[in-house]
Amino acid sequence: MSETVHVALDAMGGDNAPGEVIAGAVDAVNKRDNIVVHLVGDHEKLAAELKKYTYPEGRIVQVDSTEVIDTGEAPVMAIRKKKDSSIVVGLNLVHNGECDAFISAGSTGAVLVGGQLIVGRIRGVERPPLAPLIPTARGVSLLVDCGANVDARSSHLLQFAKMGSIYMEYVLGVKNPRVAILNIGAEEEKGNALVKETYPILKNCPDINFTGSIEARDIPAGDADVVVCEAFAGNVALKMYEGVGSVLLGEMKGAMMSSLKSKIGALLIKDSLKKTLKKFDASEYGGAPLLGLKGLVVKTHGSAKRKEVTNSIIQCISFKEEKINDRIKEKLNLE
Amino acid sequence: MSETVHVALDAMGGDNAPGEVIAGAVDAVNKRDNIVVHLVGDHEKLAAELKKYTYPEGRIVQVDSTEVIDTGEAPVMAIRKKKDSSIVVGLNLVHNGECDAFISAGSTGAVLVGGQLIVGRIRGVERPPLAPLIPTARGVSLLVDCGANVDARSSHLLQFAKMGSIYMEYVLGVKNPRVAILNIGAEEEKGNALVKETYPILKNCPDINFTGSIEARDIPAGDADVVVCEAFAGNVALKMYEGVGSVLLGEMKGAMMSSLKSKIGALLIKDSLKKTLKKFDASEYGGAPLLGLKGLVVKTHGSAKRKEVTNSIIQCISFKEEKINDRIKEKLNLE
Repeated sequence: MSETVHVALDAMGGDNAPGEVIAGAVDAVNKRDNIVVHLVGDHEKLAAELKKYTYPEGRIVQVDSTEVIDTGEAPVMAIRKKKDSSIVVGLNLVHNGECDAFISAGSTGAVLVGGQLIVGRIRGVERPPLAPLIPTARGVSLLVDCGANVDARSSHLLQFAKMGSIYMEYVLGVKNPRVAILNIGAEEEKGNALVKETYPILKNCPDINFTGSIEARDIPAGDADVVVCEAFAGNVALKMYEGVGSVLLGEMKGAMMSSLKSKIGALLIKDSLKKTLKKFDASEYGGAPLLGLKGLVVKTHGSAKRKEVTNSIIQCISFKEEKINDRIKEKLNLE
Repeated sequence: MSETVHVALDAMGGDNAPGEVIAGAVDAVNKRDNIVVHLVGDHEKLAAELKKYTYPEGRIVQVDSTEVIDTGEAPVMAIRKKKDSSIVVGLNLVHNGECDAFISAGSTGAVLVGGQLIVGRIRGVERPPLAPLIPTARGVSLLVDCGANVDARSSHLLQFAKMGSIYMEYVLGVKNPRVAILNIGAEEEKGNALVKETYPILKNCPDINFTGSIEARDIPAGDADVVVCEAFAGNVALKMYEGVGSVLLGEMKGAMMSSLKSKIGALLIKDSLKKTLKKFDASEYGGAPLLGLKGLVVKTHGSAKRKEVTNSIIQCISFKEEKINDRIKEKLNLE
């Protein structure tokens, strides 16, 4: 039997906490028998929600915390002051070794800062990137870095490429993942100073399957498995991806509801369309890992619902079983 | 009667040249009576195409050129060597004062470099940005800069904001256009070094209606009329916008064609959907101007068809009538 994975879950973070978070935890432990979820948050609220469900005894445990970090708060200050917040308490469970992973839909800044300050970086990792998975026409791609630490150096990008490759290969099961650098043209001489400096370094790295530059246009088509970029550009790419999808789908729904004729048409295409939309539903793939920390820290969308929470929890199993952090240490030639 | 606008048109550039380019020129002169199009390219090929159409005599004139710059060529070298290319010949028509504007669907790099070297910058303009219009849920927004000159300074971004405001107000008719800076969060303290430096400069500029930061996610919703950004980030935003749209629409079309039931449904929603898709069709708005040059230079998509060419030509009328370049000179406090 496989080893039990202990996941600390911020039950107070995100737009739909604690209801959807707890529902997601219940689904996860009902689906997999090697998970224990440590639900961090307000005791009364959590107990009231938990009462609604049935799940194997002992597979969800409550950990009390009395404070919540708001998304508007300055992250460093919040992490330092709110010692009893669900984020700080949850991260400490990983730091203490009681849990393997921490998942939160709360303040991205606080999770990123807290991850580094409390869980800590693997020795030799210069900067832990936030690496969301985005659905493409061919499956899913890892966009690394989309975090808050902008203005990266080429040595950071090389580490992102290596860590991203490991994640895609061993957590997502993509053999020999194609790594590309986000650029504004396909040619090697194109790009800004950082890209021009990093391109030959990636090209000469024997540990990764580097395929060259990728334009943002080709990311949704699935032309790379790992897209390496500085966090500002990565954040722009990620959020434009989300924004276009949401506006386009919203407008199309509106169009389908605009007349009786189109409403009947919408009914007829519903089943076919659902399958396609499911393919592009980011919540199918779980949250974004913060790579290179001593434990796994995962940031889910602020708007995460039940399914995304469940999938994020299940993601932690592969991360532990595949010993991702040992592989990162090895590939970065450390220790 | 309004003054005649002379437009030089690269008949050899883009994926659909010369057929679609010439068709677009014919439509433009048939629609508006104050345009003369100077069609630049291979004499025989152009004459053969022109024969297919009827249009007011003298409103399309042929200008011969024997060379073509390929998209793969190094721009500076190509502009210097291929003196008889359609791009160089067309830009010289603007430089010599024979034409008010030049439009090309050819090599973006060559158009950008040629625009600066041949047409030249308005005195005081530090860097002429490429400013495509992107359709949004609320109309259209100008994304400035999406060109090839990356790693901009804050003084460039200030000029982009001013020139972009003038373009949106007088060419697109948007009163008091909302200007925002592309950022990775809404707060003033967020961003990379360039954004942090530029934010207060834009905030304190009395000539523009600055509304703060905009995340890429909120661009498709139409939350700003002018989005100011460094070209690398702008290019990523633009191309991700195009890429997601194209993949999503392609997948949805595939879904609608997947069964007899869905095909019937597709027929029923066709009319409603067409209206929505038209709204998001970039070719409705014409090409991207290169702002701050002594004449107007417009880059259309490499894949531009008839309609985009026509709309780009018609765009040139407002540019001349509204004396955009005089306004730019005035607002940049020059001369």
